[in-house]
Amino acid sequence: MEISKLGAFGLRDHIIEGLEETCHASTLLGLTDDAALVAPTSGEQQLVASQLLLEGIHFDLVYFPLQYLGFKAVTSAVAEIIGMGGTPRQLTLSLGLSQRFKVEDVDVLMLGVKDALALYNIDLVGLEVSSSYTGLTIAVTALGSVAIGEELRRSGAKKNDLLCLTGNVGAAYMGLQLLIREKVAFDGTADFAPQFDGREYILQRQMKPIARLDILRQLQATGIKPTAMISVRDGLASDLLQLCHASGVGARIYEKAIPIDHETVGMADELGLSPTLVGMNGGDDFELLFTIPLGLKDLVDAMEDVRQIGFITEAEDGVRLVSSGGSETTIVAQGYHREEEEDE
Amino acid sequence: MEISKLGAFGLRDHIIEGLEETCHASTLLGLTDDAALVAPTSGEQQLVASQLLLEGIHFDLVYFPLQYLGFKAVTSAVAEIIGMGGTPRQLTLSLGLSQRFKVEDVDVLMLGVKDALALYNIDLVGLEVSSSYTGLTIAVTALGSVAIGEELRRSGAKKNDLLCLTGNVGAAYMGLQLLIREKVAFDGTADFAPQFDGREYILQRQMKPIARLDILRQLQATGIKPTAMISVRDGLASDLLQLCHASGVGARIYEKAIPIDHETVGMADELGLSPTLVGMNGGDDFELLFTIPLGLKDLVDAMEDVRQIGFITEAEDGVRLVSSGGSETTIVAQGYHREEEEDE
Repeated sequence: MEISKLGAFGLRDHIIEGLEETCHASTLLGLTDDAALVAPTSGEQQLVASQLLLEGIHFDLVYFPLQYLGFKAVTSAVAEIIGMGGTPRQLTLSLGLSQRFKVEDVDVLMLGVKDALALYNIDLVGLEVSSSYTGLTIAVTALGSVAIGEELRRSGAKKNDLLCLTGNVGAAYMGLQLLIREKVAFDGTADFAPQFDGREYILQRQMKPIARLDILRQLQATGIKPTAMISVRDGLASDLLQLCHASGVGARIYEKAIPIDHETVGMADELGLSPTLVGMNGGDDFELLFTIPLGLKDLVDAMEDVRQIGFITEAEDGVRLVSSGGSETTIVAQGYHREEEEDE
Repeated sequence: MEISKLGAFGLRDHIIEGLEETCHASTLLGLTDDAALVAPTSGEQQLVASQLLLEGIHFDLVYFPLQYLGFKAVTSAVAEIIGMGGTPRQLTLSLGLSQRFKVEDVDVLMLGVKDALALYNIDLVGLEVSSSYTGLTIAVTALGSVAIGEELRRSGAKKNDLLCLTGNVGAAYMGLQLLIREKVAFDGTADFAPQFDGREYILQRQMKPIARLDILRQLQATGIKPTAMISVRDGLASDLLQLCHASGVGARIYEKAIPIDHETVGMADELGLSPTLVGMNGGDDFELLFTIPLGLKDLVDAMEDVRQIGFITEAEDGVRLVSSGGSETTIVAQGYHREEEEDE
């Protein structure tokens, strides 16, 4: 069905009809008024993070299904709340839709959005639908809450703190390369079947990344308060540099300690890329990088899906990667922003 | 200077350098981390409203200067907070910029943004800069606060309440028509000078609309609590229908009571349009439409720049415009969403 059949107001009503009731006590007023009204619980403060996803820049619909895009858009904003140690609670969503999108396309996109709302247990409190001349635009803002004084900033890392990383890195980037390769292959032949067998994990990491609320809950349950934390989004190297810069410290990370999945290694090998470089510079990981005082080492050792990848040094010692052979290389950001950064 | 010279991170740093310090006690952490951290004052709740502005849909840079666009983008989100009776406090801004934009263009856009931040006394707490294939995209989210129970919803209007409107309507729409006409004229000749003399007011209303925080302050100072309020954005007719729908009431408004500036009338006459229709259906007014109990009439009479334009009826009586001659017409939304609405 053409969106013009419903109109912008009608499409908005259509989307809202398919949504669950709001779930949080803190959501006082959702989609029905000029603005949404939320009430942080007593003793909590409010976090806010916005993300803009543009067709052709942040996603390519030739190989990225709309449903997964809806999910990933929510993850992208929610991950920033979690990266501050906060619990995500509400989301606003604005869509710009060009004429090639039908109501059914929006329904598919919203399936992914709703999937993510349910997974992260958050309420959609703002929804704006607009036409667009230029493809699909998605703007999301996530609100979250954090107990007073419990926010995890980038700036608290201290010398001798341990550097910890959740999950593994580089998988989403290899998933993207696989999608791009199969897209190129697809462009060439008529009866083409994409070769995704044995690559399900890296595809899933690219297409349906899940922000690590589970790790935050584990940290809280164990009583571990990181001295600094950052959401790994642009790439481990880039985000490590951000954390070190904000904290005024240096760092050493061990090449062999960087967690990289075997599918990531396999795909990197196939493409003639160094798995370490892929792990350091791949984007869209949505993992957490955090630092803890040395005294909490045993507690972190007992955590699932967390690896100690290095330690914090004084700023003068720089931010360096220690190779398996023992040599050290200064870490330079080469993630998402590689092209721009080369000029810096 | 090409934006690629600075890169996305560098451009972000460049923008931040030119910003004032944050001003609100409630802004605990602004642009330096994964998410911003804000703390509503005790006894207050949080409002949030997002707006997406797309080139070619919401603005045309051929005739709309970037500086004013920056200002208007902020107003568009802030107006929704004020429309709920809230005090705007923080803003997040995301920009998508295609290659035709230079660093200097961003500086000009930010001049308008900063102008608006200062006028509304709000902090920029989120900033994201991205490249774009498709012109300029601006996503803004405003946060505001309101004392518990003092939010002004659309849904509280009661039978016999008075309908009140701030300022005047239709001026921004006539300003837009003037800009479009002069753009068309400009397209035709080489040594063309736009004819804006005597049209300064309608141009200003289109290009630099100011959300009515002043009226909200007056209402609060006078102790008037409207039963319902809405930000007039899509057009008086459309927003009146929204308010009536949300409140489950009808309304009568008097044609001769609708406040329309003489420049609006002049421009409407020149274009062969009915000033009443322009006032009813023009968008981008950013005025406030609200209802008050009859008993507060004298207090509202004493307010500056507020007009009583009608009254609330039972839902069965419909939403109708009473002409100067006494005849009644059912009001149909014909604002921004006219084309889509015709199909409904």
